[in-house]
Amino acid sequence: MSTTAHHRPVTAFEDNDRKPCGHGRMLRKEDPRFVRGRGRYVDDVQLPGMLHLAVLRAPVAHARILHVDTSLAEAHPKVKLVVTGAMLAEKGLAWMPTLSNDVQAVLATDKVRFQGQEVAFVVAEDRYAARDALELIDVDYDILDPVIDVRTALAPDTPVIRDDIEGKTDNHCFDWETGDAEATEAAFARADVVVSQDLVYPRVHPAPMETCGAVADFDAIEGRLTLWSTTQAPHAHRTLYAIVAGLPEHKIRVISPDIGGGFGNKVPIYPGYVCAIVGSLLTGKPVKWMEDRSENLTSTGFARDYVMRGEIAATREGRILAVRTHVLADHGAFNGTAAPVKYPAGFFGVFTGSYDIEAAYCAMTAVHTNKAPGGVAYACSFRITEAVYLIERIVDCLAYELDMDPVQLRLRNLLRPDQFPYTSKTGWVYDSGDYEPTLRRATELAGYDELRREQAEKRARGELMGIGVAFFTEAVGAGPRKDMDILGLGMADGCELRVHPTGKAVVRLSVQSQGQGHETTFAQIVSEETGIPPADIDVVHGDTDQTPFGLGTYGSRSTPVSGAAAALVARKVRDKARLIASGMLEVPVTELAWEKGSFHVRGDRSASVTIQDIAMRAHGAGDLPEGLEGGLEAQICYNPENLTYPHGAYICVVDVDPGTARVTVRRFIAVDDCGTRINPMIIEGQVHGGLTDGVGMALMEMIAFDEDGNCLGGSLMDYLLPTALEVPDWETGFTVTPSPHHPIGAKGVGESATVGSPPAVVNAVVDALKPFGVRHADMPLTPSRVWDAMRGRATPPI
Amino acid sequence: MSTTAHHRPVTAFEDNDRKPCGHGRMLRKEDPRFVRGRGRYVDDVQLPGMLHLAVLRAPVAHARILHVDTSLAEAHPKVKLVVTGAMLAEKGLAWMPTLSNDVQAVLATDKVRFQGQEVAFVVAEDRYAARDALELIDVDYDILDPVIDVRTALAPDTPVIRDDIEGKTDNHCFDWETGDAEATEAAFARADVVVSQDLVYPRVHPAPMETCGAVADFDAIEGRLTLWSTTQAPHAHRTLYAIVAGLPEHKIRVISPDIGGGFGNKVPIYPGYVCAIVGSLLTGKPVKWMEDRSENLTSTGFARDYVMRGEIAATREGRILAVRTHVLADHGAFNGTAAPVKYPAGFFGVFTGSYDIEAAYCAMTAVHTNKAPGGVAYACSFRITEAVYLIERIVDCLAYELDMDPVQLRLRNLLRPDQFPYTSKTGWVYDSGDYEPTLRRATELAGYDELRREQAEKRARGELMGIGVAFFTEAVGAGPRKDMDILGLGMADGCELRVHPTGKAVVRLSVQSQGQGHETTFAQIVSEETGIPPADIDVVHGDTDQTPFGLGTYGSRSTPVSGAAAALVARKVRDKARLIASGMLEVPVTELAWEKGSFHVRGDRSASVTIQDIAMRAHGAGDLPEGLEGGLEAQICYNPENLTYPHGAYICVVDVDPGTARVTVRRFIAVDDCGTRINPMIIEGQVHGGLTDGVGMALMEMIAFDEDGNCLGGSLMDYLLPTALEVPDWETGFTVTPSPHHPIGAKGVGESATVGSPPAVVNAVVDALKPFGVRHADMPLTPSRVWDAMRGRATPPI
Repeated sequence: MSTTAHHRPVTAFEDNDRKPCGHGRMLRKEDPRFVRGRGRYVDDVQLPGMLHLAVLRAPVAHARILHVDTSLAEAHPKVKLVVTGAMLAEKGLAWMPTLSNDVQAVLATDKVRFQGQEVAFVVAEDRYAARDALELIDVDYDILDPVIDVRTALAPDTPVIRDDIEGKTDNHCFDWETGDAEATEAAFARADVVVSQDLVYPRVHPAPMETCGAVADFDAIEGRLTLWSTTQAPHAHRTLYAIVAGLPEHKIRVISPDIGGGFGNKVPIYPGYVCAIVGSLLTGKPVKWMEDRSENLTSTGFARDYVMRGEIAATREGRILAVRTHVLADHGAFNGTAAPVKYPAGFFGVFTGSYDIEAAYCAMTAVHTNKAPGGVAYACSFRITEAVYLIERIVDCLAYELDMDPVQLRLRNLLRPDQFPYTSKTGWVYDSGDYEPTLRRATELAGYDELRREQAEKRARGELMGIGVAFFTEAVGAGPRKDMDILGLGMADGCELRVHPTGKAVVRLSVQSQGQGHETTFAQIVSEETGIPPADIDVVHGDTDQTPFGLGTYGSRSTPVSGAAAALVARKVRDKARLIASGMLEVPVTELAWEKGSFHVRGDRSASVTIQDIAMRAHGAGDLPEGLEGGLEAQICYNPENLTYPHGAYICVVDVDPGTARVTVRRFIAVDDCGTRINPMIIEGQVHGGLTDGVGMALMEMIAFDEDGNCLGGSLMDYLLPTALEVPDWETGFTVTPSPHHPIGAKGVGESATVGSPPAVVNAVVDALKPFGVRHADMPLTPSRVWDAMRGRATPPI
Repeated sequence: MSTTAHHRPVTAFEDNDRKPCGHGRMLRKEDPRFVRGRGRYVDDVQLPGMLHLAVLRAPVAHARILHVDTSLAEAHPKVKLVVTGAMLAEKGLAWMPTLSNDVQAVLATDKVRFQGQEVAFVVAEDRYAARDALELIDVDYDILDPVIDVRTALAPDTPVIRDDIEGKTDNHCFDWETGDAEATEAAFARADVVVSQDLVYPRVHPAPMETCGAVADFDAIEGRLTLWSTTQAPHAHRTLYAIVAGLPEHKIRVISPDIGGGFGNKVPIYPGYVCAIVGSLLTGKPVKWMEDRSENLTSTGFARDYVMRGEIAATREGRILAVRTHVLADHGAFNGTAAPVKYPAGFFGVFTGSYDIEAAYCAMTAVHTNKAPGGVAYACSFRITEAVYLIERIVDCLAYELDMDPVQLRLRNLLRPDQFPYTSKTGWVYDSGDYEPTLRRATELAGYDELRREQAEKRARGELMGIGVAFFTEAVGAGPRKDMDILGLGMADGCELRVHPTGKAVVRLSVQSQGQGHETTFAQIVSEETGIPPADIDVVHGDTDQTPFGLGTYGSRSTPVSGAAAALVARKVRDKARLIASGMLEVPVTELAWEKGSFHVRGDRSASVTIQDIAMRAHGAGDLPEGLEGGLEAQICYNPENLTYPHGAYICVVDVDPGTARVTVRRFIAVDDCGTRINPMIIEGQVHGGLTDGVGMALMEMIAFDEDGNCLGGSLMDYLLPTALEVPDWETGFTVTPSPHHPIGAKGVGESATVGSPPAVVNAVVDALKPFGVRHADMPLTPSRVWDAMRGRATPPI
């Protein structure tokens, strides 16, 4: 099955009311409030007597703290509280566990370890006074040599960043390896062609529209803390705060209201959250902390920062035999909450990509540097973004060396449908896939052959046009693999569905939305199974007091995990409804037929009861079958038996201005296969966003540091994000290969385009530069880098 | 088992933290906020832009509305909205169903039918402006003859109050009968002694400290209504508002925060709630409505108002053979939400009291009068208060006629332990009881024989001392009897228990507290079953968005119904914990021993896991046994198989001043048997409150009307409530006869003392007046009534 999505204009949200039950294209239920400016974000929370918190951050990357003088700040008339690391240390709160086999300083006590690290905080009557008072805190620093370049961080005599860890004598963090080194070596030995390529995936930032923040409100009488927080994982945060702050878990309520984008940036626990909690505990007042843009960009949630060598071995005919990679990963000063612990899960799981390869091996070393904690899961499905970039780039290098068309080379090596479920060389089981139709659908939508002809003509005229192809397989929806449990709290997610007496329903999710449209998608999932119209189903999420425990939204896991839970819990409700219907219609359940929303007696449509009739009966409007409990509701705690493996084929067409080296993305064709499509409109929105991410990473985005460790990307003037001007009208299509183990066959799609698009763009740019003999150039492909590449100059180190 | 409760002084709430798990005496968890003034009541809700609503009420009892002119009120600069019945009628909202086979006017359209009926409402910027504007509404009334006396309401040519009902030609409301008239007639024919006594149980008012009110907040963007309400039944109210206001049920959230007493007054839906909702719908702003004291006293939630004839037949030796009663019930102008529908359930169920009687018959007629809707369940267990008063009074009349000691007469007739479960003459099944020890315990605590000696001495001196005895059996905890389903929404109540990863828990109740101490009692119930300390268990109630469906708190049903649900749901959690423990300790479940809070391997106490360890494991800190879902939680929807039947023996000692006829309650001994006692301190508090109610009803309380239908009890200057000055130091004791069908054997105790104490007080006063030949005098036994009784004058009609 394969068609192009057509955009149907819908003029009013009221159209939703006419939407038939279940899956399909419908406008988002949450949009009326968003488009009217009535979303309620953390910064919209205003409480009586609320105070404001500002964080003093380290101005240098590496320095010993000699002395902190807060007396002037404390004397500020509007200042209520000034807290330093030393004060926290007295309370045993100076360090917090990150759950990534590490601790992180809430406020620095001994040293600062990255520019922007938290050193002290001020709580004042207003935001301005709090900021002003930061200037009044006097800190004496003994500046140390910073360690910035991941490639030299392990050199002898390099300063030891983490001297807080007893016995630590270097900046080494982790060593991991996977695959079969011997078999890979043997395959390489047999190969006709071996290509090796060094690549850098630069440090990038998710840069959500809303920065991180919280309002902490401690009620001393009840001993209860309410925390409005921008987190993507309210339940996991609650448990961690219970551990960090020593408050009983049942006395903590974490509310994640509307969230302005997450993309992984809002998974970790940042010191700021803990500061807000401590501020409220100590003042007895509500305390608001909201990062400004610069704080968000310099101090939170980085991703990537991988220096990689990829090697690929193939026959002369282009049959890939083996892949070998070495990675140097920059984890920054601390392993943040979402940093890999046991091993860099997704990278190791799918680094051989979508190809039928004989042998593979990967080794990775993680090191500490004087940068903000990295390793965050920025729309990366556990570092699959890096793995897909690596494999898709070196496959293109192979095509370059073999002088083969990149589509042909891929078609020759893609996994075949009969290989699924496919166990990868590192033991991960791809649940389902049918790759060739997806790639063919992309070339067909693109008019690939015609594009190549156009390219040839242009090249003949000296114009630089590039066509980039990328094929990706993701592994999303953690998931039963304990090694993907980035929060250390298990992977099962709860879901509850309750049908009220009048047949309206509420579904409660453990996951929560940062803009993905959960209120719509989950209403549709429940609607599909119960026949209750989506408008009659409320979706509750983002409040630990109102929802079952679960790990939150990251790694495209909402639909694979909670979506499955919602479908199953809806089926449980339908099963109970069937028993009640049997009593109401006075026939055995075997005599009942279900048609979305009602049961009727087989062969007699006039003898029927609707789900709404059944709901009223379940709440007392008549007797229930013997032994059946009242109510119409169900719960589940769902632990998926596998990840889901969405895939896709992307084709990018670029023009490069030979005079300015400026890259223009002229077309982008994205064919995604995420299994069953619940709401195609929402899926397209997710894909559009991810493609924009990809263009940004490929062409513009990099968090750079100077040699002193100063972050050079501290504002959106320096850290460039793509706008509507930099992206084309997206051309999307789809194929449908349902997941066999997901109850409705859906796979996660939230990160697909972010994962799949950067290599398509880079491949296109490199392809455009083929007349210059360019086989590779590192992201971001800014005009100066492209200019250098055209002139045969190496990419400068980042 | 039988002991007197000893009051243990506890100096600090912190003592609770040292309280061992489970049942027993502990301070209430909710009291820190109450005693520090931090309770949050409906009137504490302040929302930005909130408007205030005031209700215009009928100044007369019966009148046709000719014209309503609101123009002056609308012109008031602070008035936002004026709504009349005619405006509501246009929207189809003028009448609301009461679920008691009737409708009630939200705002009067055609006629006003009782003094205080709602005629119009004003919404204004502040409460004062709203009240002022009421004065500006001009209503033309055509005054009709009022029908006030229930005894003449059915007389020919009486004005028809409910001419809104098509074809209605009189004020007849319901006729009901129960029992066996023939068998009763036969027993009366055989009897040596027949006593007949007319009694009046006057109209009384629950008079909770907090009046009724609501804050309605309609969010037009989300189509969502939040209603903070003083209701005792938030879920049932939500469903009714969905029906009345046409809002989808899932878009309504009813929050009952701290409630300042209910006693049945806050079960019904009053027009004021609907007005607040309409006010918010029409203005788009939050709207607060709070009754003043006078509105509460004149227009809401009356109870009793029964004119009764009791007849009792016995042998010369005092063996009771049969009981026959006739009741004329005043239902006021409408059958309110809590008025009996099918029949006056509890009255018919237990009107034969605690006695082994051969035959019984009861007939009841309910009529309409021009009074506010009555029939409300004021701490009455479905009109059991009236039934107990009737039987205990006529048993004393029998003792008077036989010249027998009332204790001896009761001992001769009490049901014997071998008769339980006892099926009453009207088919109700008393679950368990052992009555004689309870009565003997009361006489022992009272020093009954000594009291009688003292009385004899005093009588000899011309002093008036009375000793009153009452024995009662209640039927509480509705319950499986559909005929007790006062809200028409079935009787099953949900309960949910969730244990968080760190072993703290939250239990969610369908019922909710108006001051009964649910946060403590339910934490103890769950603690007893799980071993989690009560301090680690949060009790969530009173919020339809956060709790499972259920019918609310009335008829002493919280412990019998939701208490059973909480115990069962905790056992479900323990059962799941046992499975997880089996995996953790690697032994079959049969090898595990449970000791409150932990499992250990039988014979090896060192091999053990706590419930907290298990909770962390259940959330991912290790593998679970094959096939077991994650999480540690359970749900139930509990439908009890029977009511519970608490009983008690009360002895009251009064002195009557022969010069002023003033009654002083000198001593009151209450021995209650409510089965298993969860928190004796809370039980004692409930009993103390109910005894105070009883003294009030017996001696002071009556909502009287003049012949024009003017309510004479519209303030606490007119409607007298007992204070600490009018009541003695209560002397309480207990016996324990567990309920066989309740999982922990508990019975409801909330209303016991209210039910059992009035006859004890009246019996005592009548006993004091024995020297004057008084066999009966009607409540309230004010000095003037006692004076009249002493002088042989009949009680004036009420």
